[in-house]
Amino acid sequence: MAPTSDFEQMWSDLAPVGRSASSGGYFRQPWTTAEAELRSWFAEQCAARGLVVETDGIGNQVAWWGEGDQPGVLTGSHLDSVLDGGAYDGPLGVVSALAALDVLRDRGFEPGRPLGIGVFVEEEGSRFGRACLGSRLVTGATTWEQARELRDRDGVFLADAVSDAGLDPDAGLLSLDRVGTFVELHVEQGRDLVDRDVAVGLASEIWPHGRWRFDFAGQANHAGTTRMEDRRDPMLTYAMTALAADEQARLGGHRATFGRISVQPNGTNAVPSLVTAWLDARASSDDALAAMVGAIGRQAHDRADRDGTSLDVSAESVSGAVAFDPDLAARLAGLGDWPVIPTQAGHDAGILSEAGIPTAMVFVRNPTGVSHSPDEHAETADCLAGVTALADVLAELAGTPA
Amino acid sequence: MAPTSDFEQMWSDLAPVGRSASSGGYFRQPWTTAEAELRSWFAEQCAARGLVVETDGIGNQVAWWGEGDQPGVLTGSHLDSVLDGGAYDGPLGVVSALAALDVLRDRGFEPGRPLGIGVFVEEEGSRFGRACLGSRLVTGATTWEQARELRDRDGVFLADAVSDAGLDPDAGLLSLDRVGTFVELHVEQGRDLVDRDVAVGLASEIWPHGRWRFDFAGQANHAGTTRMEDRRDPMLTYAMTALAADEQARLGGHRATFGRISVQPNGTNAVPSLVTAWLDARASSDDALAAMVGAIGRQAHDRADRDGTSLDVSAESVSGAVAFDPDLAARLAGLGDWPVIPTQAGHDAGILSEAGIPTAMVFVRNPTGVSHSPDEHAETADCLAGVTALADVLAELAGTPA
Repeated sequence: MAPTSDFEQMWSDLAPVGRSASSGGYFRQPWTTAEAELRSWFAEQCAARGLVVETDGIGNQVAWWGEGDQPGVLTGSHLDSVLDGGAYDGPLGVVSALAALDVLRDRGFEPGRPLGIGVFVEEEGSRFGRACLGSRLVTGATTWEQARELRDRDGVFLADAVSDAGLDPDAGLLSLDRVGTFVELHVEQGRDLVDRDVAVGLASEIWPHGRWRFDFAGQANHAGTTRMEDRRDPMLTYAMTALAADEQARLGGHRATFGRISVQPNGTNAVPSLVTAWLDARASSDDALAAMVGAIGRQAHDRADRDGTSLDVSAESVSGAVAFDPDLAARLAGLGDWPVIPTQAGHDAGILSEAGIPTAMVFVRNPTGVSHSPDEHAETADCLAGVTALADVLAELAGTPA
Repeated sequence: MAPTSDFEQMWSDLAPVGRSASSGGYFRQPWTTAEAELRSWFAEQCAARGLVVETDGIGNQVAWWGEGDQPGVLTGSHLDSVLDGGAYDGPLGVVSALAALDVLRDRGFEPGRPLGIGVFVEEEGSRFGRACLGSRLVTGATTWEQARELRDRDGVFLADAVSDAGLDPDAGLLSLDRVGTFVELHVEQGRDLVDRDVAVGLASEIWPHGRWRFDFAGQANHAGTTRMEDRRDPMLTYAMTALAADEQARLGGHRATFGRISVQPNGTNAVPSLVTAWLDARASSDDALAAMVGAIGRQAHDRADRDGTSLDVSAESVSGAVAFDPDLAARLAGLGDWPVIPTQAGHDAGILSEAGIPTAMVFVRNPTGVSHSPDEHAETADCLAGVTALADVLAELAGTPA
């Protein structure tokens, strides 16, 4: 079976799931109907290949090819999306894993150690605000006792969302005991590969990054009758902070974004009482990240003093720098003369790497670099090159017994 | 019957309706359960006074004391609130109207011409974005054909919201044929009366004011991997525009507020694709208002050019300056040596005045000036002074036949 037909068939099967008719983007939030459909689809794909899928208490999934207790090779990614996201971020890694397995079987490959395909839940943190929640729980980076109290935007507890999705959070989590190496294929989310004119690359590191919640509190008041000098308007403090974040990131060559905001009462003719905004910040080192977030916070506090508002900043999640196993990257790069490049995006691969599992990432070229957007794209030829590259990587890693 | 007991009883009856347990503020949006309860309460109060309430097809209400076709005197206000609003804005005028009628009857007053008490719906525009919608429809300033297609934040059409509330929009609207004069009592929303150390004042004029919708469009993208210089982030354009609005209003002694915002997709790790924000702007003259909004728009467009975003500005509602009948104000001011002051807030009184009905407003002191907020307040003694003042005004206006 040629990879082309398999890959393209799987891709078109997934295309309508969770897609917005108006924007063309995807709403595949965890523990929703769309995500349940994706989980069923994955189980069917595995079953069609004679693999048995294990689904854990929160919806992480894994299917192993080959028996034995020796350390195996796991590949895969995630199927959830950001709000109004693209088709490739996550699903490309899962579909490519299945297609790569087909390629290996077509080649007559027999795994020397177990080869697994996995799907982690809530990688984007789009519903409960914690990115890589599934892999964090599996590795113990986050405990269930910490996570179960998280609430989504509608106030639903994580534990209830999981139960309502027909899962049993008390049924336990996936074991990573059999995972000797992890490989995640992912669409690139920048333009490094475009600039280098190659279809495939490997990851060297993930920048440190995190999410901080800024609560700007003021006093609700009438938008007409309240003199400007009598106001305590938190929207102004927020606005200056958003511009300060942009400036700080530009100055340091880092990233800082306010993409989510919630305003109370959010009425046209009322000065707001509260503006809550979330800062996504990333930098090339842990120190640089802390310095940038500190500088943004200081500017925000100074402006709050001027505006008569108050500010509370709390870190919702902070991930330190992740250096992927350099020996592994060097060994794999030799298979295809692939460049080894850094990324500013968090991934389940980063969580598993931090948990001590030798980990590699394979990137597939993104012609515009656009991601987390309905405009996210990868050419089919590049996706197929990614499948072949992933098959080569898996053959290298799983070809011989541990 | 002393006004104290009546006023305070009515006030405490209304206190729990539509009140948020968490903020203490009010959510009395039109055509909701809370507003239906207020409408029933008003009908019961009128019935207890032997008055028959007429409710029109969209929920405007009026009850007349006295027969005859000669031009009468209408007083009243509204019962809806902004989101998380105060108790006084609107209801104080309705409760005071009922209490003033009690005072007049206690005095043995017999109207020389019909005296009516009215309630207009959706004065705040908190649900469908058009302030004074009820009075605009009654006067013809807005037609039903224009209004029926309005949608609330959940996409519900106005016509459906009205029908779902058990009203029949095809049943017609209140006639103003019997209204020779309109008087609206309202809590002051600034601090003019505090500064003058008096409990009651009259209105001279309403500043011109309006609402403009700003749609800032950019490109959704990954908050981590997208270099700052590759972004088209509409949040930055918005942030600068919010600060520019504040600056323009301060420079001119006007008002400009961005209190409402909607972000797409509103995800922490995505550069937004679209930021929609509503500008509430008010100034002391029509020219000054147009100049200020124009200046804000130009600064916003300049910034959009720098950010690679685009901007569309549309006026949702603009109300020109309203000068209340100066002879009427002078005549009434003599009753209590009341100051005559301008307001920056729109009112149904402004709509009726613009429709050619001689109109006056009575303001009751607000000790902090705070309004459109759970903190909005007026002292009971001042409210009772307002009731007496309104009774005096009504006696002056309705004491003799037309």
